Formats: sequence, structure tokens, C-alpha cells
Amino acid sequence: MSNTYGSLFRITTFGESHGPAVGVVLDGCPAGLEITTDEIQAALDRRRPGQSDITTPRSEEDKVTILSGVFEGVTTGTPITLVVNNKDQHSHDYSHIQHAFRPSHADYTYTAKYGTRDYRGGGRSSARETVARVAAGAIATKLLKEQGISVNSYVSQVGTIKLRKHYSKLDFKKIDANKVRCPDGKIAARMIGVIEDARNSLDTIGGVVSCVIQGVPAGLGEPVFDKLHAELGKAMLSINAVKGFEYGSGFEGVKLRGSQHNDEFYTDEDGSIKTRTNHSGGIQGGISNGQDIYFNVAFKPVATILQPQTTINDAGEEITLQGKGRHDPCVLPRAVPIVDAMAALVLADFVLRRKANKL
Amino acid sequence: MSNTYGSLFRITTFGESHGPAVGVVLDGCPAGLEITTDEIQAALDRRRPGQSDITTPRSEEDKVTILSGVFEGVTTGTPITLVVNNKDQHSHDYSHIQHAFRPSHADYTYTAKYGTRDYRGGGRSSARETVARVAAGAIATKLLKEQGISVNSYVSQVGTIKLRKHYSKLDFKKIDANKVRCPDGKIAARMIGVIEDARNSLDTIGGVVSCVIQGVPAGLGEPVFDKLHAELGKAMLSINAVKGFEYGSGFEGVKLRGSQHNDEFYTDEDGSIKTRTNHSGGIQGGISNGQDIYFNVAFKPVATILQPQTTINDAGEEITLQGKGRHDPCVLPRAVPIVDAMAALVLADFVLRRKANKL
Amino acid sequence: MSNTYGSLFRITTFGESHGPAVGVVLDGCPAGLEITTDEIQAALDRRRPGQSDITTPRSEEDKVTILSGVFEGVTTGTPITLVVNNKDQHSHDYSHIQHAFRPSHADYTYTAKYGTRDYRGGGRSSARETVARVAAGAIATKLLKEQGISVNSYVSQVGTIKLRKHYSKLDFKKIDANKVRCPDGKIAARMIGVIEDARNSLDTIGGVVSCVIQGVPAGLGEPVFDKLHAELGKAMLSINAVKGFEYGSGFEGVKLRGSQHNDEFYTDEDGSIKTRTNHSGGIQGGISNGQDIYFNVAFKPVATILQPQTTINDAGEEITLQGKGRHDPCVLPRAVPIVDAMAALVLADFVLRRKANKL
Amino acid sequence: MSNTYGSLFRITTFGESHGPAVGVVLDGCPAGLEITTDEIQAALDRRRPGQSDITTPRSEEDKVTILSGVFEGVTTGTPITLVVNNKDQHSHDYSHIQHAFRPSHADYTYTAKYGTRDYRGGGRSSARETVARVAAGAIATKLLKEQGISVNSYVSQVGTIKLRKHYSKLDFKKIDANKVRCPDGKIAARMIGVIEDARNSLDTIGGVVSCVIQGVPAGLGEPVFDKLHAELGKAMLSINAVKGFEYGSGFEGVKLRGSQHNDEFYTDEDGSIKTRTNHSGGIQGGISNGQDIYFNVAFKPVATILQPQTTINDAGEEITLQGKGRHDPCVLPRAVPIVDAMAALVLADFVLRRKANKL
Repeated sequence: MSNTYGSLFRITTFGESHGPAVGVVLDGCPAGLEITTDEIQAALDRRRPGQSDITTPRSEEDKVTILSGVFEGVTTGTPITLVVNNKDQHSHDYSHIQHAFRPSHADYTYTAKYGTRDYRGGGRSSARETVARVAAGAIATKLLKEQGISVNSYVSQVGTIKLRKHYSKLDFKKIDANKVRCPDGKIAARMIGVIEDARNSLDTIGGVVSCVIQGVPAGLGEPVFDKLHAELGKAMLSINAVKGFEYGSGFEGVKLRGSQHNDEFYTDEDGSIKTRTNHSGGIQGGISNGQDIYFNVAFKPVATILQPQTTINDAGEEITLQGKGRHDPCVLPRAVPIVDAMAALVLADFVLRRKANKL
Repeated sequence: MSNTYGSLFRITTFGESHGPAVGVVLDGCPAGLEITTDEIQAALDRRRPGQSDITTPRSEEDKVTILSGVFEGVTTGTPITLVVNNKDQHSHDYSHIQHAFRPSHADYTYTAKYGTRDYRGGGRSSARETVARVAAGAIATKLLKEQGISVNSYVSQVGTIKLRKHYSKLDFKKIDANKVRCPDGKIAARMIGVIEDARNSLDTIGGVVSCVIQGVPAGLGEPVFDKLHAELGKAMLSINAVKGFEYGSGFEGVKLRGSQHNDEFYTDEDGSIKTRTNHSGGIQGGISNGQDIYFNVAFKPVATILQPQTTINDAGEEITLQGKGRHDPCVLPRAVPIVDAMAALVLADFVLRRKANKL
Repeated sequence: MSNTYGSLFRITTFGESHGPAVGVVLDGCPAGLEITTDEIQAALDRRRPGQSDITTPRSEEDKVTILSGVFEGVTTGTPITLVVNNKDQHSHDYSHIQHAFRPSHADYTYTAKYGTRDYRGGGRSSARETVARVAAGAIATKLLKEQGISVNSYVSQVGTIKLRKHYSKLDFKKIDANKVRCPDGKIAARMIGVIEDARNSLDTIGGVVSCVIQGVPAGLGEPVFDKLHAELGKAMLSINAVKGFEYGSGFEGVKLRGSQHNDEFYTDEDGSIKTRTNHSGGIQGGISNGQDIYFNVAFKPVATILQPQTTINDAGEEITLQGKGRHDPCVLPRAVPIVDAMAALVLADFVLRRKANKL
Repeated sequence: MSNTYGSLFRITTFGESHGPAVGVVLDGCPAGLEITTDEIQAALDRRRPGQSDITTPRSEEDKVTILSGVFEGVTTGTPITLVVNNKDQHSHDYSHIQHAFRPSHADYTYTAKYGTRDYRGGGRSSARETVARVAAGAIATKLLKEQGISVNSYVSQVGTIKLRKHYSKLDFKKIDANKVRCPDGKIAARMIGVIEDARNSLDTIGGVVSCVIQGVPAGLGEPVFDKLHAELGKAMLSINAVKGFEYGSGFEGVKLRGSQHNDEFYTDEDGSIKTRTNHSGGIQGGISNGQDIYFNVAFKPVATILQPQTTINDAGEEITLQGKGRHDPCVLPRAVPIVDAMAALVLADFVLRRKANKL
């Protein structure tokens, strides 16, 4: 198991979906950063269940507590521990899935790997683990803000409905203006329609989150293996349900010729170095070049559906299984703060790592 | 800088494109594995320049030497060092690029990060560094072979020419049957046409490498951060020119509904557990499920083109630059052994890590 | 900050002495290990304040809670989180030390490093952090027990009173038979006298803990840097107040000649390989050889004394300071379970790491 | 195997004593440090065999080559590779030790761990590996010099002959004035006598190296596990033949009372913060306090002696073995540059790590 991410700004998450709590230890946050419970709570509130009728109607408060590392409202340089207690952890009945290998869940693989698993609601493999990431991400976001770096994620595709506008035409302030978190109201309405249709069909649907990071100074990233985009990719791919990552020109860029794809440098009037195009997505040779960083993250449809499915149990016998309870028909709206959090955690780590590059 | 990859099967690469040598230290390879220089050399020969008229015509031998860790043809458990001397490192003239920030190269970002750089042929940012990866990958491949695991990469797209056949319809033995390394002869011919056209236009073109890993037992992968596909993604994204990674259903899968996307389990006649479809790409919850693993890797067009381009120098002045010498019009054919190598390195690491999961 | 220790069996500790809680996340514990709260509590009870009149009379319960990673009494392979709430964290008055740099404490160095610190009772630098180590150590000890490995620490010196008997003449079952944790009753009585005298003089006294690890198979340790004794040394030196570490013949061994010091091998009647002497302390070339491992750990006298001392405050002004409250006159009796815990954590890590040595 | 040491200033060593070469990759050295082959060679010359008649008379040149990471005499921030070719690696006959488990060597433990080993002259377990450490240490030393930090090690004990003078009474410039590397000429003469006597008796003798680090700013060290002295301890204990480590008051300090041991702070005339005594050895709470750091390292007598010894072979049969060839009767004089190197590597790492402590 590797439940630790990051090099100098490093999180270790813990907790099962139906155990007593989920949480995170953040080690390496520099001393002197002001942080309040409210700031962390605000990030969690964007992720929490029950926030709209196109997400799971489970209502959980997800109240965060700071157990260590913050003294009189300021980080001390010691590990920061954030805990969110799980609600009603004993009230559910899991007998229908205790022995089942649910399709496209991790029941089978965890059993194959460990010989045992906490079967209650997915246990450790549940997306509830991302509560911990979002909590720690709020601190990373605060650190980045002090460096002038902003992270903005939004839903750019649901099913086949795609937001085709370039991000520069979007108003990031409108991301939270609708419940699907797409900053273009018209497209958002269509996306909501697709999600409602999936929900009404007792089904689920996938989509894409796009992310734009601005204000990044040139020089972040640690080649040859910890390239900035390689770490962003790993961080995104470590989120539940993610199937793909592309940055800059991405998969479409392979169709271009070098003469079309290359980003020419020029010196701006203020003396700063810029590129005329940005197919590079703000990263060259694995290191930020000062231009905007942007990338896309593909999420598969949620595996839990409220229709009967054929599968097997842990004795290898065929069974029919039907999802129960309150689940997300589409994970995308609630995935936005998770992508934000992981992007912030990656950037914060590279901000610290950069300090050791030159004497 | 992070020039180390892997947790228990761990490589550290070193060397600049025009320094004395490039090489790798592989730490953590278990004792008792038979390995010969010839096996490593065979892998390097698939990567070396000058192998066909659609790759760079530079002819380099890339002869590997084993400096440590192998005794009487068998690994001893101590670090294995492989070195490839660079040829003619002093014979070139780099005065035209010494002060230039070449478009979509890493000249500017290395300078921004370190305040200095080895400007000869890209220095450390050159794809020549992948010689070290391919050499180490040959040992990983040998280890995997003993575990019954095979890795097969091939070119599945060049520009807009795409191999649409499912991998199960391909004969991996034909990958090296043509110079573009696409196992379908007809598509390969078209791809070659596109590359030749790019070359004739003094331009370059991008593409996609697909990779299939077979024989992987259920249970490899280390959630929640070191998910098998997250590490594969990072490893691929750390390769020069890579812009995207997707596995299983990937970006296309976001359009599906859960009822279409879910992979139902069944028990095969031999008692083994399988899935009827494989949108999961052989990985669920970050852990292999015993089905084939497959993924795609997007490569941008090579940045060095033989046409004049406008850019700036390190004084911020506009300059016109034109690529000289012998360069690849398309990196894809030579990228295949690099993808093979990185995939093998990732898998070998997880094979070792798995040993610690159960008592 | 590095609050993580271990490679595959890895702990991250958190918490300040007077914050809400101290705790630990243990990542990498294999699945399938039976563990109860009682077993962990028993280890903590050996460490807790108020256990005798020669330790601090502060009475703290140190009740442990398992927050994650254990399901139905068995580890699941996911991170195990243990938390101990601090008692009465708001009831104390720290105004006398808020601005003081106490002699031989970490007040000054934390301030120099971070620019700020949690001044309440030492904050993160307090030995209260070892609660977390002892809790995690209980799980390591259980894992080792299943492998037939035992760890026994005891007090072998207090001030100038030294237990000179070879460990083979001691009955480890008697370690807890007296309050100083020296298994020889006569020497224990003298040690207690020395501690009482120090306490009565409003002073403190140092000492040595010795540790014997038995049942270790040959082959544990990871040269060249993570030698078994090097990791034991680091682990011990990371405990508060430790000033030295020696194993096997240690500092005395430097006086011997090679012909005296060398441990000759022989084959025992049962076919096992043994050494006639054990100056090596069970470790050769950094790897266990199957003989007993033994080492000594030096602890300085506790820095907090109930006498007035001259020092400075954070404005650089000379002040007089006098320890208040209830403190240990000698840390040795309560250090025994901490040495046990760290030794167990080191060994458990190497047990897991060894699994990857051979194919 | 773990052949990597360090966190941000990180070395990976490789090579067997009688393989083609030994060497090191140093990753993380900041860009912009001037370094020449001569500076590295000078450090190696202090370690090389054949330098005096009280060390091994084997004459090896140990010529270092820089393979990467230095361009036009300046580090570039990319990995620095240093290689020293082994001489005459095929000329020796090892048939007498091929199957032997030499007393107090690592033959048995390597075989137990890996099932195989390179038996030529100890292979990887040979102290020849420290060539790599000394080479990398020279670069660390250069980096520290630019920060105003100096490291001075010397022999303070051989057998029972002990240098009792406080280090402040010594002239470190005289360390290399005699062949035993004890800066006090009178004591050095006696030490040499003891070594010559051991050599004449076909025997060997142990000793202690002391080390003083000066000019360290307050604030280096990463609690709670990577305390400055804990890393120094691990680094020293990872050197061949080391049996113990103590810093500051060390093992003797346990006899003191807190009132004697505590180091009172005062503000010096220049406004700097100092302590009146330095039992802390310059480190409090695991972090440097700006005072001198000093520690002792115990080395056992060399295991290879030129007398017959009884032991067993790998078939478990009793054999008689006698050392052949040219060996050190005492490792201490040549251990001095190794202690210097490891101390410098530890400090350089903490210098870089400190950069990430405050925003």
C-alpha cells in the first residue's frame, strides 16, 4: 500500500468509507501559513454528498477537525492532521455485497491482493478517501495563493456533451454557479439533462474535468522522472474512476506537424518571456515555462448502478446484484474539487522542491 | 532533479546527450536472474538511431557495458550499472544553439530553473537519456518473462492515420516486421507515407504508441496513490514528447453509461476469474485483475524541424533558427522500445512490492 | 520535517504534547494480522506517566483508539491509524516558558528553524510524541512474534550504576518486576536509589538501555546504506534524549585485536550455522547472521530540572528559569518500551524488505 | 538493497571490489557549483591504499573520471556520475575464499540473503565501496565550504591509546601531518607503535575517529525521525567496520546530572546566541543550534588477519583459513576521509532540506 503522496509537501491519507473516520497527515507544510478550519471546511463542502439533486442524496456534514500542526491559527512546520468522522457507520446493512465481486469495483482485486477486505461500502477503495485529499488540498491551495498561483477546474464534458470553448473565454467565477460545475450556463444545462437522464434510467455517465493553473513561475518540475506533467498525471490517475490524462495539445496534438505545434518564444513589452501559442500546456521538458498549465482528466461512469447485473461472489458462483441506496449518477460535479485539490498538492510540492535547485 | 524511478526495483539514470556517456544504476534487482550483455544490447538496437530511413540517419552503435552487479552471468542483488559511451561528443558545433531558446524545447525552462545548462544537443533534456531506460528495461523484461508477463508496444497512430483493429486481432510478432513498428502491414505503409511526407517537407509528425501487457497476475498495484495505472501513467508521461496517457476505455469511455462500461465477472471453465468485457483495462481500484492491461501514449511531433523558426535568445532578442543535422521526422518507431522499457520497469517494481502485501 | 520512518512498514507520527491528540498512521502492515486495542494499550501502559514514584507523577490514561485499517480484529493492508487524546490540554499555564529558551531543550532550535513554535510543554519536540511510536510498535511486535522474533530491552545503567552481567544471565521476564526495569533486583535497587537521590536533589540523571533481539533469521538488512545496525542506530538516535548507540562489541571492541574480535563460524549439531563468539552483535556486513542482536542506547539526564537556571528569552535577554510541575527525574524506566517499539519497527520493516531479495 | 543515501542531495553508489569499476551517481547537487576532477582526486588520494607503511601496501591509483553533470567546470543540476576503474581485476586468485565463510566478514550473510555472491575480495561488501562515498563527499565538502561549514575528522583512539585533549586544543591542519592522522604528534607516535605491533603480529587493531563540524547555522535537521544526529549516526554506522556512534556528551554523559549537563544559553557580545557549555554537541531536539557539532565513531579491528583461523565453508564443513595478500593492520588512518565524506554528505543534504522549512 502506498498512502503517501508528495516529496516535500507530503500527505498520508487514511480511513475506510464506513470506519470511524477518514483523515490525512500533511507533513512538510512550511511554518507560518495562516489556515483556519473554515477554509478547509469550505473546500470539503464543495465535495460533500447531498449538495444537489444530480449528486448522491446522502447527506453528510463532513465536519473537519484539526488535530495537530496548527497553533494559534498558523502552521508550525509540524505535521498537520485533519480528521473527518464518518456518520452512521454502523447503521447500514452490507450483507448483499459482503461476498460479492461487484462489476468494475475493487472488491475482487482487493481480495486477490490482501486475502481480506473491509466490504462496507468499498472500504478503503471508496471515493470517500478523497475527503482527505480535499482537506489537505485546501492548505496547498492557501500556500499557492500566497505565491500567486491559482488552480481552476471545471466540468468540460459529460457523456458526449462537450464544452468546446477555449478556457480563456470562460469566467472561472461561474464554475460554482450551477450544480454541474461547468462555467458555461448553456452547456451546463445540457450536461444536467444528460445526468438526469442517466439517473432516471437507473444508470450513470462519465465525463471530463479540465483544469487550468495560472501564475506558475518558470522553473517548477523535476526531470527526468518527476516532470511536472508526469506528477500531475499520476496525481490525477490516482483519483477514483480516472481513465486518462492529457495536457497541452494532448491526444489531438499528435495529428499536428512540428511546424504547427511548436510554440515560438517572444519577449513581451514588459520584458517577460512568453510563447505565441501554448501547445506545450505551460510545460517544456517537464518544467513550467511561465505560461498557463492546462490539462484534461477522463472519468468513467460510476460503477454502482441501480439495475441488476450478473457477476460472481467470492466462492466463484454467479449471482445477480443490484445497487441499493443513494449514489451519484455522475461523479463529475463532485470530482471538480478533488482535481483542484490534487493539482494544488502537486504544485505545492514543486514549489518547495524548487527551493533546492540553485545555491 | 529526480533521476530515480521506482520503489523496490529502482533506476537512476545519468548522462547528457553529448557528455562522455549515458547510463543507469538499477538497484533492487533480485539476485539470481541470468542476464547477458547481448540481451541488453538487443533492446538498445531497437532504439538506436540510424536503423531506418524514416528515423534519424545518425549512426550510433550504442554499445552497452555492464559495470557492476552481474557476476558470472547472474545478478547478485547488488546495484547493476550499465553504461553507453557517447560517440564523437566533441566533434559538433553548437554555436548556433548555445544562446537560443529553441521553440518547444527545454532550453528556456532549464535555464530558468538552473541558471545554466549543457547546451550541446539538449544536454540532459535530450531523448538520448532514454538509452538508459531501455537498457534497464531489458533487465526488467527478463524478470517479467520469468514471471510469465509479456509487454508488447506498437505504433497505433501517426498523424491522422490510425490503426483501429483491436489488439487481439494483431500479431505482435509482426511489430518489428516494418520500419514504423505497426503490426498491420497496410496501415504501416500509410504511416510510412505520412512520415516520409513530413520528412520531405522538412517537418515532423506526432502519433500514438499502444501497449498491451499480458500474463499479469491479479493483485499488482499499491493504492491509493501508487495505483498500477497511475504509475504507468507517470512512467509514460516522463518520456520525452509524451502529451497524454489513457488506459482501458480511456477518453472514449467517458461517453458510456455505467451499464455499458461495467465489466461483469464470471468464472471460467478452468476455475479462473475473468471479466466478460475489459473496459477496466485489466486494472480495478488501481490493482491488476488478471485481465490484459492496455493503454495508449500520445507523442507530440518532434520539436526540431529543418525549417526556419522565429524565437528568442537568452538575451531576449528575436532570432531566426533553423534545425541542422540529422533528426527524426517522427519519434514513434523508436519510441516503441522506450514504452516497452518503462512499462516493464513499472511492472517489475510492482511484482517486488506485491511480495510484502500478505504475511 | 520528517515525521515518517520506515520503508515498507512505515509510520508517520503526529501531534503536539498539549494539542488535541498524538497519533500515528502505520502504512504497509500486511493484511491478516490479528490485533486488538488491548494489545496496543498494554504497550502504552508501560510507557505512560504516573506508573511509579520514580517517574513523573502526572497521571495520564493514554487511551488508544483505532481509527482505520483494522476490520473485525484483523489488519486489512490499509493504513492503520491510532490516536491518543491528550488530557487537560487547556488547563495549564505556559506563560513562564512561552518566551524562554530553556537550556538543552529544543525551544531555541525550533524557533531558529521555523520562526515559530508551539511552546506548550515542548509542543512537537516533547517526548510525548513517543506515545505514537509505542502504539505502532505494538503492532510491529505482534508481527515479529508471528515470525518468532522477540525484542527485550532493559535498563542497564543509571548514572554510574551499571549492570555488568551478560544478557544471557538475565531473566527477561523480570524486566517489569521492579519500577526501574532492570532485570537484576540488586542492581535495580541501587539504580532506584540513584534516581531517588536525583529527584530529592531537584535534579535528574541519565543512563543506558540495552536491547536484545532474538530469533532473527539470517538475511535481514539492506546494505550498503540501510544496514541493519545503521537503521537500528538511526531509530534509537531519533528518540528524545539519546546521545549514543553501539552494537555488538561497540566502543569497547576498538581495543581488541582482530584475532580476539573475529567470530569463528561453526556448524551446530542440528546443522545450523553459528558463531563461537558474538562480537558482531548478530550483524555482519549490515545483515543479520542468525545470532542474537544486542545493542546499547545512551540517554542523557532529563533537561527539565526543578532548580533555577540562567538562560535567555527569545529577545536575547538573560532570565532565570525554574522547572515547574511534575517531571521525570530519570527517563530510563519509561524509555524501555520506547526502545522496544523502535527496535520492533526497524525489524518489521526489514522482514518485509527481505521478501524482495530473491526471485 | 539500498545503495542510495540522502534525501535532496542524494548518492547512489555501485561497484564491487574486483568488478570493472566502483562509482557513484550524485543527484540533487544544485547547479552553479564549481568543481574540478582535481578536487575530487585529492579526497580520494587521502583514502587510497598504499599511502603509508601502516596501511595496506596495495598500490592503487584510484583515478576518478566525471561522466556527467558537470559542464565547463560547473555543476548543471543534473546527476553527477563519478567512476573509478578497478585495477588488475582479473589478476587475482580467489579460490581459497570462494567457498569460505570468513570470520566476521559478510560472506555468510550475503549468501544467506541472496543465495549467491561475488566472492572476489568481498565483492560489494568490501570497503572499496567507500571510494564512491569519498568521491561524492568531495563535492559535498565544496558545497559546504561555500556555506562556511567545515568538517574535520581525525583519529582519536587506536586500541587503548587515546587522545584525551579537547578538540579545541587541536590544530586540524596537522591531521595529515602524520600517517595515522592524529593531530597530536606525541599521541600519533604511540598509535603508530600499536599499529606496527599489530601488523608485526600478523594481527589488526581497532580505534575511534572523532569528527568536528564547524560553522553550521542554527536550524539544520528534520525532526522527529531525521534528526541531525540520527542521520549522522546512520551515515557513520553504514561505514564498514563501524560499531558505535556517540555525539556531544555521548555515553559518558549518562553519568551526569541534568544540572551539570544542561547547556545554558547566553547572548554573546556580537548579539549571537551561544551556550556556555556544549554537552549537546551542537544539536538540540535534532536541530543544530549553531555551536560546534562533534561526535565519535568506533571502528572494530579489521577482520582479515594473516593468521590461520578456523571457520566453515558453504558446505558447512570446518576449514582453516589464512589471510593472504596486502591488507590494512588498522583501518583508522584511511577511515578519516570516509568519515569526512559521510559527514559532509549528511550536512549538504540538510542544507538543501532546510530551504523548504519556511515560506
